[in-house]
Amino acid sequence: MSKAFHGRFFEDFTLGELIRHATPRTISYGDAAIYTALYGSRFVINQSEEFARSVGFPRAPVDDLLVFHMIFGKTVADISLNAIANLGYAECRFQRPVYVGDTILAESEVIGLKENSGGESGIVYVRSTGFNQRDEVIVEFVRWVMVRKGGHKPSAGAPGVPALLGQVEPEALGGGCPRIDAKRWNFDLSGSSHRYSDYRVGEKIDHVDGVTVEEAEHMLAARLYHNTARVHFNAFEEQSGRFGRRIVYGGHVMSIARALSFNGFANGFQIAAINAGRHIAPLFAGGTVFAWSAVKDKAMLKDRDDVAALRIVTTATRDLPAEKFPSTPAGENGPGAILEMDYWVLIPI
Amino acid sequence: MSKAFHGRFFEDFTLGELIRHATPRTISYGDAAIYTALYGSRFVINQSEEFARSVGFPRAPVDDLLVFHMIFGKTVADISLNAIANLGYAECRFQRPVYVGDTILAESEVIGLKENSGGESGIVYVRSTGFNQRDEVIVEFVRWVMVRKGGHKPSAGAPGVPALLGQVEPEALGGGCPRIDAKRWNFDLSGSSHRYSDYRVGEKIDHVDGVTVEEAEHMLAARLYHNTARVHFNAFEEQSGRFGRRIVYGGHVMSIARALSFNGFANGFQIAAINAGRHIAPLFAGGTVFAWSAVKDKAMLKDRDDVAALRIVTTATRDLPAEKFPSTPAGENGPGAILEMDYWVLIPI
Amino acid sequence: MSKAFHGRFFEDFTLGELIRHATPRTISYGDAAIYTALYGSRFVINQSEEFARSVGFPRAPVDDLLVFHMIFGKTVADISLNAIANLGYAECRFQRPVYVGDTILAESEVIGLKENSGGESGIVYVRSTGFNQRDEVIVEFVRWVMVRKGGHKPSAGAPGVPALLGQVEPEALGGGCPRIDAKRWNFDLSGSSHRYSDYRVGEKIDHVDGVTVEEAEHMLAARLYHNTARVHFNAFEEQSGRFGRRIVYGGHVMSIARALSFNGFANGFQIAAINAGRHIAPLFAGGTVFAWSAVKDKAMLKDRDDVAALRIVTTATRDLPAEKFPSTPAGENGPGAILEMDYWVLIPI
Repeated sequence: MSKAFHGRFFEDFTLGELIRHATPRTISYGDAAIYTALYGSRFVINQSEEFARSVGFPRAPVDDLLVFHMIFGKTVADISLNAIANLGYAECRFQRPVYVGDTILAESEVIGLKENSGGESGIVYVRSTGFNQRDEVIVEFVRWVMVRKGGHKPSAGAPGVPALLGQVEPEALGGGCPRIDAKRWNFDLSGSSHRYSDYRVGEKIDHVDGVTVEEAEHMLAARLYHNTARVHFNAFEEQSGRFGRRIVYGGHVMSIARALSFNGFANGFQIAAINAGRHIAPLFAGGTVFAWSAVKDKAMLKDRDDVAALRIVTTATRDLPAEKFPSTPAGENGPGAILEMDYWVLIPI
Repeated sequence: MSKAFHGRFFEDFTLGELIRHATPRTISYGDAAIYTALYGSRFVINQSEEFARSVGFPRAPVDDLLVFHMIFGKTVADISLNAIANLGYAECRFQRPVYVGDTILAESEVIGLKENSGGESGIVYVRSTGFNQRDEVIVEFVRWVMVRKGGHKPSAGAPGVPALLGQVEPEALGGGCPRIDAKRWNFDLSGSSHRYSDYRVGEKIDHVDGVTVEEAEHMLAARLYHNTARVHFNAFEEQSGRFGRRIVYGGHVMSIARALSFNGFANGFQIAAINAGRHIAPLFAGGTVFAWSAVKDKAMLKDRDDVAALRIVTTATRDLPAEKFPSTPAGENGPGAILEMDYWVLIPI
Repeated sequence: MSKAFHGRFFEDFTLGELIRHATPRTISYGDAAIYTALYGSRFVINQSEEFARSVGFPRAPVDDLLVFHMIFGKTVADISLNAIANLGYAECRFQRPVYVGDTILAESEVIGLKENSGGESGIVYVRSTGFNQRDEVIVEFVRWVMVRKGGHKPSAGAPGVPALLGQVEPEALGGGCPRIDAKRWNFDLSGSSHRYSDYRVGEKIDHVDGVTVEEAEHMLAARLYHNTARVHFNAFEEQSGRFGRRIVYGGHVMSIARALSFNGFANGFQIAAINAGRHIAPLFAGGTVFAWSAVKDKAMLKDRDDVAALRIVTTATRDLPAEKFPSTPAGENGPGAILEMDYWVLIPI
């Protein structure tokens, strides 16, 4: 049997199976700095050790999406190397803060399998969990991907589609954020005076700026996350692929949109949960990403008077400024929406 | 009122106003490593903890221009988001060394305002100051930018143009450099045998090499510095902008020129002050930067026999090798000078 | 005499001469993170502090090729600035592990000189040695380069071609790896179940994936290594150069190939020696690198029952998938082999 791995096909997954993913990774200040260089994220809690300590964090936590991408990245080699499409995310909860020096690793449970009618592919649902070096859960999420069949054996076991929650309930939020001293939150330094009470449900915010993506950038990002999906790296083979070129890792768009959303949600310092994420259309290098958001809900957290949660739906677009809050999906080469992400952020009360 | 910020216009500035800028930033070894990867700077004092300690630094200091760019970057969102042009710098003094682990923040005082005759823009002069976590001044500088008027209200308050010094006086130099043991300076390891006494006023040096700039590089740099100026990032909107494409952050050129100047000034290990800086013409990705320098002055520092100062004027060019010391400004697409930077460097006696 | 250095020409080298190279460098977590972002290397021993400690390393060692490139980079300004071609490597031994925080420096001894018959160039052989801050040897290697003559003076001293070993003998391997507790090696986390006994001499492995290289990436890499060879950076002058464009640093290809080889040799966690390295054809940005390997030999190490050595010959190709194990050299613009690297890796028994 070949020692090189070509990835699992749909038939290689079994319902209930637990997969331990390779290459635990100690997160360093280097990773955090590269993340800043890639996205320019300015959320102060991740940028200043002094600020983080002043409000009660032991140290500056690592950006939540950097943690998410690193856990996601570890799952790629086992889950989605032969994926045709990343269909969605749900039930993502950030349960513990991660600090530089922590070592993270990932495992996934196969929680759903469904063959497609054409018989050439199927949908695989996994619940992936990230752990730190003390075996504490730091983040978990469900994702589902359409995976090619290999045709080398019959599909394994029983099919099943998991029942997924449409949102993470507010009572489940906040694990990623220790109790902070919100009175010491410096709104000059954080970049905005707006706190929980200043936002209203239904409010829409254009994040104004646009960022053009280069091939080198999204590849540096995906490699930093140990994401080995071929479509991001191999221009030679993608020439004859679906789009004729490399596709930007969808999580790269999530991080760009989150960084842009600083202009409007500067105090929404931590992502507590992702209720749903959908890559509506692909992004290619040369495209310019814009973003806008709507406040979908607001919620107090159980037993906490320091921070509360805003439920935000952020739409990222390609080559389309967002001042009119556009949501029409991007065409193959045309402008339009490429990502919709529904998530909870924590913000001082 | 919109929670997203579109930047200040000329009318939004008031003479004497003090602006505290957002997002303090703890500088890490990651930032320093990215800076090395971006410019290849080889000045030994920033590269080797052992060397720095051997001459009396407590640790390797962070490159002066990295500190400058980070302080500059913080000011952009408040000062120059609607700038038409960065006109110049003056009176920049590096007053204290910065080490990895320090947290830096910035504030700016509006020290000059002058409407342009056309009535559509004006010049804003600010004195920006960088502080460390002990509220000590690490660097300060004056810059002036041409800023669009918004047309939404009358210009605020009295105009005024500050009197600026043509140079930082030698007696004000050296705060960024602790007393060192120059006898322990290893000229093999530093890359050159040339010390203070080897340079003569009027001497010109071609720095030989040329470096082509890529879009991914200057955007990584600007994001690392939290510089959010749109012209660097948004190819979609710049298509219909002044130059039809993204413009490289002028500070990126300063850092390239400084790194190139290692070949000629390897022992000029620290920038003590910038007397004047002028971006003569823009740089675009694909352009190749060359540089040459003239020694404009030499000065002993007050009460110091370890290091002295060389006043250098470095000219950076675009697509024009510098062996003939060219200074004609680059045309829109043609070759020529793009930067002139007049600064003091410290060098062992 | 000019203070800017134009590099040594063939006549400037003397047999037996020892050259101390500039700019010692303290390796940081930032360097390690950038290396990961550049190549996506997943060898667990470099990625996880926890894993490294669990098997008996004091900490996670720095990737061997990062160390190699940094030592190599330091030699460029003195050895190969006027090189026409990098001809080969031999007798490279990694003798001590390097950890973040170590400061490394380099020196080279000229061990061979041979004028070419045309009289316009000659071959320079150097043995370069890397040291840490305790003056311990960390790596050494021989390389030979074809260097232009300057025509400014007669060639110095006697010629001589060193006798080089075709391979590093197994008894000389292992200095870079402390004794580990192989029983605690977690083959789930390392990414493969294959250990020493699973490989047989003659076995060939296609590493499957292909990676397209961008200009920004190879220049970031070369600058991180302080490699100042002009052909990598200066598109303006290379337009009229041999290939009409920038050439990717050959070591960049070595690191890409090594990272790809994880898919097949995930437990071959450390390079112990490089027997021979040959850049068969240049790589340019836009090219896609594939790789395959053959197991050439296997060897137990003296007095060690924890790890043993596989001798691997890895071939990297340009724009040519490797499932048929191709070895024909790439043409000027055509596909084919660009690198052949013959090396020993350590792997748990």
